[in-house]
Amino acid sequence: MRSSSLALAISSGFVLVISLLGMFLLVPQAKPQAPVSLNLMPQPASLKTSTGALRIDEKFTIALTGHSEVRLDLAAERFLTQLHRQTALLLAKPTHDAANATLMVHADHASKEVQELGEDESYSLEVTPSGAKLNAANPLGVIRGLQTFLQLVEVTPDGFAAPAVSIQDQPRFAWRGLMIDVSRHFIPLDVIKRNIDGMEAVKLNVFHLHLSENQGFRVESKKFPKLQELGSDGLYYTQDEVRDLIAYARDRGIRVVPEFDMPGHSTAWFVGYPEIASGSGPYSIERKWGIFDPAMDPTSEKTYKFLDELIGEMVKIFPDNYFHIGGDEVNGKEWDANGKIQEFKKSHNLKSNEDLQAYFSQRVQKIVTKHGKSVVGWDEVFIPGVPKDIVIQSWRGQKSLAAAAQQGYHGILSNGYYLDLGWSAARHYAVDPMSGSAADLSADQKKLILGGESCMWSEYVNAENVDSRIWPRNAAIAERLWSAQSVNDPASMYTRLDAVSARLEWLGLTHRTYHRKMLQRIAGPAVTPEEFAALKALADVVEPVKDYTREETAPAEPTSQTPLNRLVDAVPLESDAGRHFAELVDKFLASSCHDTATATLLRRQLSAWSQNDAAFTALEQKSFLAREVTATSRDLSAVGAAGLTALDAIASGTALTSDQQSRLNALAAEAAKPKTQLLLIPTAAIKKMINAASQPASCK
Amino acid sequence: MRSSSLALAISSGFVLVISLLGMFLLVPQAKPQAPVSLNLMPQPASLKTSTGALRIDEKFTIALTGHSEVRLDLAAERFLTQLHRQTALLLAKPTHDAANATLMVHADHASKEVQELGEDESYSLEVTPSGAKLNAANPLGVIRGLQTFLQLVEVTPDGFAAPAVSIQDQPRFAWRGLMIDVSRHFIPLDVIKRNIDGMEAVKLNVFHLHLSENQGFRVESKKFPKLQELGSDGLYYTQDEVRDLIAYARDRGIRVVPEFDMPGHSTAWFVGYPEIASGSGPYSIERKWGIFDPAMDPTSEKTYKFLDELIGEMVKIFPDNYFHIGGDEVNGKEWDANGKIQEFKKSHNLKSNEDLQAYFSQRVQKIVTKHGKSVVGWDEVFIPGVPKDIVIQSWRGQKSLAAAAQQGYHGILSNGYYLDLGWSAARHYAVDPMSGSAADLSADQKKLILGGESCMWSEYVNAENVDSRIWPRNAAIAERLWSAQSVNDPASMYTRLDAVSARLEWLGLTHRTYHRKMLQRIAGPAVTPEEFAALKALADVVEPVKDYTREETAPAEPTSQTPLNRLVDAVPLESDAGRHFAELVDKFLASSCHDTATATLLRRQLSAWSQNDAAFTALEQKSFLAREVTATSRDLSAVGAAGLTALDAIASGTALTSDQQSRLNALAAEAAKPKTQLLLIPTAAIKKMINAASQPASCK
Repeated sequence: MRSSSLALAISSGFVLVISLLGMFLLVPQAKPQAPVSLNLMPQPASLKTSTGALRIDEKFTIALTGHSEVRLDLAAERFLTQLHRQTALLLAKPTHDAANATLMVHADHASKEVQELGEDESYSLEVTPSGAKLNAANPLGVIRGLQTFLQLVEVTPDGFAAPAVSIQDQPRFAWRGLMIDVSRHFIPLDVIKRNIDGMEAVKLNVFHLHLSENQGFRVESKKFPKLQELGSDGLYYTQDEVRDLIAYARDRGIRVVPEFDMPGHSTAWFVGYPEIASGSGPYSIERKWGIFDPAMDPTSEKTYKFLDELIGEMVKIFPDNYFHIGGDEVNGKEWDANGKIQEFKKSHNLKSNEDLQAYFSQRVQKIVTKHGKSVVGWDEVFIPGVPKDIVIQSWRGQKSLAAAAQQGYHGILSNGYYLDLGWSAARHYAVDPMSGSAADLSADQKKLILGGESCMWSEYVNAENVDSRIWPRNAAIAERLWSAQSVNDPASMYTRLDAVSARLEWLGLTHRTYHRKMLQRIAGPAVTPEEFAALKALADVVEPVKDYTREETAPAEPTSQTPLNRLVDAVPLESDAGRHFAELVDKFLASSCHDTATATLLRRQLSAWSQNDAAFTALEQKSFLAREVTATSRDLSAVGAAGLTALDAIASGTALTSDQQSRLNALAAEAAKPKTQLLLIPTAAIKKMINAASQPASCK
Repeated sequence: MRSSSLALAISSGFVLVISLLGMFLLVPQAKPQAPVSLNLMPQPASLKTSTGALRIDEKFTIALTGHSEVRLDLAAERFLTQLHRQTALLLAKPTHDAANATLMVHADHASKEVQELGEDESYSLEVTPSGAKLNAANPLGVIRGLQTFLQLVEVTPDGFAAPAVSIQDQPRFAWRGLMIDVSRHFIPLDVIKRNIDGMEAVKLNVFHLHLSENQGFRVESKKFPKLQELGSDGLYYTQDEVRDLIAYARDRGIRVVPEFDMPGHSTAWFVGYPEIASGSGPYSIERKWGIFDPAMDPTSEKTYKFLDELIGEMVKIFPDNYFHIGGDEVNGKEWDANGKIQEFKKSHNLKSNEDLQAYFSQRVQKIVTKHGKSVVGWDEVFIPGVPKDIVIQSWRGQKSLAAAAQQGYHGILSNGYYLDLGWSAARHYAVDPMSGSAADLSADQKKLILGGESCMWSEYVNAENVDSRIWPRNAAIAERLWSAQSVNDPASMYTRLDAVSARLEWLGLTHRTYHRKMLQRIAGPAVTPEEFAALKALADVVEPVKDYTREETAPAEPTSQTPLNRLVDAVPLESDAGRHFAELVDKFLASSCHDTATATLLRRQLSAWSQNDAAFTALEQKSFLAREVTATSRDLSAVGAAGLTALDAIASGTALTSDQQSRLNALAAEAAKPKTQLLLIPTAAIKKMINAASQPASCK
């Protein structure tokens, strides 16, 4: 039914006497050049480059030798899938025949059935123009090394290639985690899985599931089914799904640590089981954000019996040695209001609610220990005298981590790694578990600091935008936890982060593509190309307000029912375009003012911004979601125009008049004010240009 | 663990005495305005607009009344999911309580258990500012009407709303199909499913699965397992998957017609079962494209016994009344070379291979009929005298369709709807099953023309880019088959197509997002933002060569193993940016030359193109995939500069000198030549500008 394929087949008259493989061999093969740069993230512990590169073409094969197990086969298949995504080459399946393989993989022995904290993850990787070898003690090292190989593969002028290198690598910290809060907004399993793929790509090894909250209890209990039936709006993981998820993570060398937050942050439990609460109930699922009064009754044996049975059930599903009991932010109001509890405090000589919580923590720790697990908890669970196998997860900072270490307790750092606060990758990157108070610890005490975990709290995060809230910034944190403390140049980090971000997109993460659909929703399907371009240009240079100012500046009190459809929900937490513009301004101001190439780029950008609001105005007439950000669009065009004036002044070597200065400074000051929870990122760089233009003869 | 949420909760001191619902009611509600335009596709048979609009907010509910069945519940849930995607509103589940529903849906009775050709798909939809009613005879009409409602929902200055309308709607044709060739390149089930979602959105009702080819046999047979085991490279659908797919399609009001192409296009069958072939074998899966010699042996009873058993097995899986037997493009070479077959022709008085194929078709038709199904086949199966229940699928055009109709046979049109040929949406849109020879048929004969099917042949299509090869253009074909023949204005079609394309993206189709990853592969992860922008700018204005010239101009003979990683694989088949530019040029040339607003837009675009190659040059040094398209990048900058010269001449009212004319015309002629299988779309519009600038006083 192909109207001209018949004619083609006849006219070509091509006789097939050579095999397809033969055909490939006949194609002249230029010697592959090494890629221009190495873009590994995290940086390996030791890397030597040499000359030449290994061509990656359709003849590429991978062979597995040494210790053999299904997990290694799966890792090799996953590797080939990702190599296909990067190159579109159709590749042969993995073999166990090392003789002719391009990449020969060897694992000495198995790793633990249930992955343990501190297991060997080291590997060595040798790439030469004629082949590559990956050696590791166990499958964990193989999994890490395969990701390094994938990051080595680059496009070159002569095809795809991996540069000749010799790498010896192992992590600095044994605990390198990502926590996702699936309770405030439920995150479906497929979204979790692609984030676990992302974790594997940057060598993270702990996935921490924050499973219960005031707003939801997210895992099925068969013993206490009202937990999920009444406490989750129907949005929870079944036990089979959890088992599947744990197997999925294990395949990728990732432990899964479950968190059941108690005795506070637990309203959702009480909807079905008010009898373990300190208040009189009834309770309903919390829809708002913040800290709430409901807390478990730490004085009732019913509570401990309930927890004993629930924890007993959950440790059968979650095989990891660590079990997270939360423990944060109890405001004590329900305890204060309950006479029986006050009575108990007196009779047990518990002087404060902190003492009462310590009593609760100790009881729960005993239950966890009884079930064969070790406890992880937020700072509050650290009370001198608790068993030494506890791990403190610090949301308060290196100081509390150091304090615990001084008394012989293990800790992991999360302060500084809260992904929801909207910090730049560079700001997260500058936080090191070993800096601050931790730097003063003794060598033995330092060993107690196991690593860190980034935390994705989900007040303003759902399945649609969560990838963009985690990635690519989380890759910078992953490097902080894997690579040497001395690997800390933000410029190098950003160059490599841009490359990793592209690779994460091939992996299936949506942090670069989610954006279009959300902007389209704001613009409406009937938007013109010019209007959409104007919205996109604005979206590219704004960021949500930082830290907790989003709550403080909300137009109405936000709840879990608030639609996440505003520009603040759609834009990435860090503006790439804003960063690139700031770099360009710095380059221009640091150089001779006769750097006309940079001046041309700046002029083009500033000119486009100065004209952007004209196109955006039309969209404001169509969409309430566009109209909301009118002021920011005006600001962008205003600072664009201000920047042009400053640029002209600098380029001509004529200082701005004082009238001009005050007018431009006023514009920049106005644009610097957050509006509708958005920050206009280029403002700071344009302010620099105005300052430079305000000095006579600002050219060097 | 939220370091400032405690402070926030205390400082806000907000006492919760009102319910959340109450809160919503307290927000002042502006009267919603009607959206600026209606962007329905396909256009309904009858539509009346009135004043006002129905607000769509978090209080929106849908109720199902009348005939009740699970399929309706699922349709309502799917509707709410898509409404959520369009608005991000959190919406209540569907109810059967009509009292307070925003949208009340009523179906009179069930539709057929197995959906039949010609079943009633009509519906009426009334939207007023206070509510909406959707009525239909059966669930098929409800499914169609829900999609119309979704297309009515637009963003407005006051929130989301659907305009007040009264719609009576039904399709013009009963057979409105999409065929996907899953044999040349296998297309995974999840990709198929999202395309079926797209079909539902534009009211298509037949999904035609082209299941077997020289390059692959794609469905599991339990009777003849070597068909998929040896004939598919492991890429096929299991019977369970097919059942799941059929249920998925049925839920969306879509029939599934399987095609087993015979007696030609069948090499993959013979890998496992050479005994039904006309040659001596052995056979292997074909890797090249075109027409090949292998064909079934039409003279052997073994062949018919095999087909009887296979068809008997397949009709149990595919419940549709129609069964497609292919029948196209047998070159007869294996028959000519087989003495036994030549003998048979003589002894049965079959004068030609066409006669022999007619004999085969009649035998197979009898088998299909015996199994209770009616035959569909390509033009070649139409031989005067075949049973009247046959449907001819015409790849040859309206002429052969009309010829069949004149003899009382049913037909559907596919000629003009081949999506792989790279035609513009407007060109497909202009093809009507009732035009050409069909226009001269009598009224009764016209009734025999059942509709049409677009065809996605998959030589250059895989899971990564298939969505972009089908959508959005297929929506224009869907309108052709649903709406009146008089609905044929391409400008209106394109306006509405842009809106539908955005809606299809919300549905999960990747036709707008796939692009980034493929361009990133070409550019490499280490690309700079400027280089990527240059590649994107080039990609936005090129299209693959049309019709079958891709085969004819391939750098090496393409096979199923050729990676689809070149720019020609990555760019959409129709350039939106190219179309918008051409519209702008037409507007400028048709207007006074003093249309400075349009001139400014043109100047900005032409200037950007003229400078684009400078940035692209850097990328050519990094990537062989970028270097391949160097000449086209040069051409783009050349025609950009030529366009600027022409624009200046027109704007100043000074004709180009004859030297300028010949220089610019030579540039445009060079740019008009396809290179590396790419067409540079703006060239034609720029040629128009050069022509206009060549005439003295070209301004009106």
